[in-house]
Amino acid sequence: MRTHTCGELTDSHVGQHVQLCGWVQSIRAASDTLLFVHLRDAYGSLQLLLEKSRMSEELFNEKKATLEQLAVDSLIAVNGIISKRPEGMAKGNSQACGIELFVSNISTLNVTEKLPFNPHIKANLPSEEIRLTHRHLDLRRTDLQHNIRTRSKATMAIRQFMDDNGFIDIETPILFKSTPEGAREFLVPTRVSLGACYALPQSPQQFKQMLMAAGFDRYFQIARCFRDEDLRADRQPEFTQVDMEMSFVSKNDIQCVMERLIQHVWRAVKCVDVQIPFKHLSFTEATNKYGSDKPDTRFGLEIAQTLWMCQEPHIVAEVLVIPNGANTISSRELTLLSELIRASKNNNESKPGDLVFVSERSTFVTPANTTLGRVRTAVAKILQAKGHLNIPNDQYNFLWIEDFPLFTRGEDDVLGKLSATHHPFTAPVAQDIPLLYSDPAKVHGQHYDLVLNGVELGGGSIRIHDAKLQSYIFESILKLDPMVQASFGHLITALGHGCPPHGGIALGLDRLIAILTNSQSLRDVIAFPKSANGRDIFMHSPAKAAAHQFAEYGLHIIE
Amino acid sequence: MRTHTCGELTDSHVGQHVQLCGWVQSIRAASDTLLFVHLRDAYGSLQLLLEKSRMSEELFNEKKATLEQLAVDSLIAVNGIISKRPEGMAKGNSQACGIELFVSNISTLNVTEKLPFNPHIKANLPSEEIRLTHRHLDLRRTDLQHNIRTRSKATMAIRQFMDDNGFIDIETPILFKSTPEGAREFLVPTRVSLGACYALPQSPQQFKQMLMAAGFDRYFQIARCFRDEDLRADRQPEFTQVDMEMSFVSKNDIQCVMERLIQHVWRAVKCVDVQIPFKHLSFTEATNKYGSDKPDTRFGLEIAQTLWMCQEPHIVAEVLVIPNGANTISSRELTLLSELIRASKNNNESKPGDLVFVSERSTFVTPANTTLGRVRTAVAKILQAKGHLNIPNDQYNFLWIEDFPLFTRGEDDVLGKLSATHHPFTAPVAQDIPLLYSDPAKVHGQHYDLVLNGVELGGGSIRIHDAKLQSYIFESILKLDPMVQASFGHLITALGHGCPPHGGIALGLDRLIAILTNSQSLRDVIAFPKSANGRDIFMHSPAKAAAHQFAEYGLHIIE
Repeated sequence: MRTHTCGELTDSHVGQHVQLCGWVQSIRAASDTLLFVHLRDAYGSLQLLLEKSRMSEELFNEKKATLEQLAVDSLIAVNGIISKRPEGMAKGNSQACGIELFVSNISTLNVTEKLPFNPHIKANLPSEEIRLTHRHLDLRRTDLQHNIRTRSKATMAIRQFMDDNGFIDIETPILFKSTPEGAREFLVPTRVSLGACYALPQSPQQFKQMLMAAGFDRYFQIARCFRDEDLRADRQPEFTQVDMEMSFVSKNDIQCVMERLIQHVWRAVKCVDVQIPFKHLSFTEATNKYGSDKPDTRFGLEIAQTLWMCQEPHIVAEVLVIPNGANTISSRELTLLSELIRASKNNNESKPGDLVFVSERSTFVTPANTTLGRVRTAVAKILQAKGHLNIPNDQYNFLWIEDFPLFTRGEDDVLGKLSATHHPFTAPVAQDIPLLYSDPAKVHGQHYDLVLNGVELGGGSIRIHDAKLQSYIFESILKLDPMVQASFGHLITALGHGCPPHGGIALGLDRLIAILTNSQSLRDVIAFPKSANGRDIFMHSPAKAAAHQFAEYGLHIIE
Repeated sequence: MRTHTCGELTDSHVGQHVQLCGWVQSIRAASDTLLFVHLRDAYGSLQLLLEKSRMSEELFNEKKATLEQLAVDSLIAVNGIISKRPEGMAKGNSQACGIELFVSNISTLNVTEKLPFNPHIKANLPSEEIRLTHRHLDLRRTDLQHNIRTRSKATMAIRQFMDDNGFIDIETPILFKSTPEGAREFLVPTRVSLGACYALPQSPQQFKQMLMAAGFDRYFQIARCFRDEDLRADRQPEFTQVDMEMSFVSKNDIQCVMERLIQHVWRAVKCVDVQIPFKHLSFTEATNKYGSDKPDTRFGLEIAQTLWMCQEPHIVAEVLVIPNGANTISSRELTLLSELIRASKNNNESKPGDLVFVSERSTFVTPANTTLGRVRTAVAKILQAKGHLNIPNDQYNFLWIEDFPLFTRGEDDVLGKLSATHHPFTAPVAQDIPLLYSDPAKVHGQHYDLVLNGVELGGGSIRIHDAKLQSYIFESILKLDPMVQASFGHLITALGHGCPPHGGIALGLDRLIAILTNSQSLRDVIAFPKSANGRDIFMHSPAKAAAHQFAEYGLHIIE
């Protein structure tokens, strides 16, 4: 259908007869005898000239009439001869800027109706709702084309690296098991028996541990995962993670592979050399200094602990000093910030004109932001917007956050039950194992998060490979319901059948690509995303299923 | 945890101190002062020697006692010095056969309970049911390790080829849309609104066509697909396909890419040079000659049409001659074969001793086997088993089957409605377009199946890119219910918004890998397959969901 694409044509093709296909980007009549057509395909664009002198008058008039009726983004096939553009007419800096095509013949491949919006005019785009409704058009935008193509490139770079490093790409089931405690999982009813369900996996965690038990040594997968929850600003019910697991490794081995992977991807996609190894920060230090377990360390504004305010045990008082803040933060902004905090006082290390935030918190912190951590982020945004703080976009402060508590008390369980900070398969730090039996809340886990500029890219851990230890944690520490414990039976069995020590990590691919493409929303790096409330506006999904469809699964809709 | 893997050790490591981890395959006391341990990891194996003379008596006795208590497949870490094995003791042909390790120290990493079966003794494997129950053990078998690793290798080769040829890897949603006619789709209820469901996709067909409309030009994806149907012998409710789509192409362009891809994969995985281009066979010819739309052409036994039997229109009489069949087919086998056919008579082209099968069929054939096609396959199996027919395993008769009818009458609709032979988006052959309006049953489609040795590897087509033509087929030929038509609204809209001519193909990855690894069952090329009745015996899925889980989705179980 075509001999070349627009993108591959250069000066070296001058004089050649070529056949091209593509979209009509614009048509302009220079005179009664000359028409300019801007042709675009996925690889580039080219100026076409339809000239009366080069064909019969009848043909010229017919083609001119046809072209002038075509709406933007109609499709044509054209053949003709590549020529050099006259000196001084070569515009732009693309390969094809110095050449044009004199049309011998032209035909319409598909007529386009008037488009609801023109995706090529950046200044005039409609709302995201309308663009999602016509996703096939929105995806023609240069930005989205770039994002989706970058995603493909980054994904290939990841696979290449994993393959080169001996990781086996193994697909794990998407029709997984419904678990009694799986509050956030999607159920998939099946006809196997009435009321029976698969569930969609939130991660391939159990499968990848089983692959280590099976002796695969190094596993990876770019895996689709699912979470049925109220969607916050930028979450998707299905997301993709770069998942890996390794046998006979320490934390350091896994971090080392991950650092080299990140370096490889940044080189392949951004031609940037990321410095490795990454810095390490303990969870406690991150919380104390930055009030967050995913701190952005591209700027200071560090929080300090202070003893002069309160003597209560388990309560720590903290101070965040904004140098010269009294002059850079407006009173309106201060009011907004005050909503984040209880009190704002001076302390004795500050200078006149500084703004000082003071707050108290429990010394038992669950992984999240502290009050001053939220203030720090909000202040940084304000100062950056006003030019008082420089947070460079091209600085990549990768960080390992470690030494998390293995268990945390839920907010509702202040005195009672412990729950796993990350997941119940995380191994304790070796020297803390005796504490498991005396003071489990003090045990640290072999978990590590990878953080970049305030964003959590991923996390992983060394897993428990000892069946007895895993059972003890299920039973005696997490006090899991026996039914829930039973649902992990295959895991305990497999650990007892010769499972090597192992660990792994998973990276959020969507977020990684968003960072690599400087995208504000995950929806800009997913070809067909769900909207903020979980709907596919393009396909009109989810849709009301008919009663008879449910009936086949032995289910009916409660009216 | 280790300095080397067993697989990387060679003669060049002799004299080096190394640290290894792995499974204890066997332990044998040669004397009171010497113990042989066979150590295995994912990459190879090595003989360890625990010798009394090399350590304190106390240490030797302690380690010996520990080792002798270990069950098969317990995990140890060991360090020591690599030595050359004495002349004449080097057995086998692995890299490591000439070396062994003198143990300095040894420690247990994980104690293994008695295994329900030993996956390393091929002769003594339990039933598939038991092996699926302990999939983590079964996957340690050499065969399954080989299959899963080959799958990873083949998948990487496919991705590399697609990437090198300018295809963009794009993920499409797994939370797809429930369609009114989607009888075989899994529903996924969601909390977005009561009774609302996503559905799992049977293929990314609609999305990939939308990607062409969006201007991606060349798309590919290794995509998970789902089908909720009664599982026949070797089907899985989730399966993987190599999916691709291209713009501005003819059938030939797509076939050419696919042939080069197959050639690339066979080279990468089997070091075999597949001859391209592949042969082409029309659907009619395949049905006439071989009684199948996926014929195995490695052997003859061709069917012939004959006119001497019946004069009825729309009925064709066929003959299958098995030369010397009267001597090679037993009467018991003949009885079994007779169940496949109505009549068996002599015709005038056969020689004495030949066996002749005769059958009648309608000239309107739906894509499937004819009676004589089934007899041909069954006879070939019998003759092959007895050594009367040679069907070489290493001969790869790739075939394109083409010129299918675009529409077929369902068995229940002999006089009435036509349905799409493949799917309703397949484009008609250009010269048949006028027939669409006069005699649509005679229209051929631009569909093509890729067949290898009697197995359908995949299929594809040139799609309809004209919104009006697509609407006409939905409405006037397939006479789709208006609600079903409405559910394709986004497709019609996108075709009308400047969708280029396009086409594609999808390959069944599971089947491809089964062929590449000579596996009899798809379950042998999937890490965690479902059993023949759709159950994951290993994870105990699907499981009965609790009433409260359904209630969250506004559903309840019909008792």
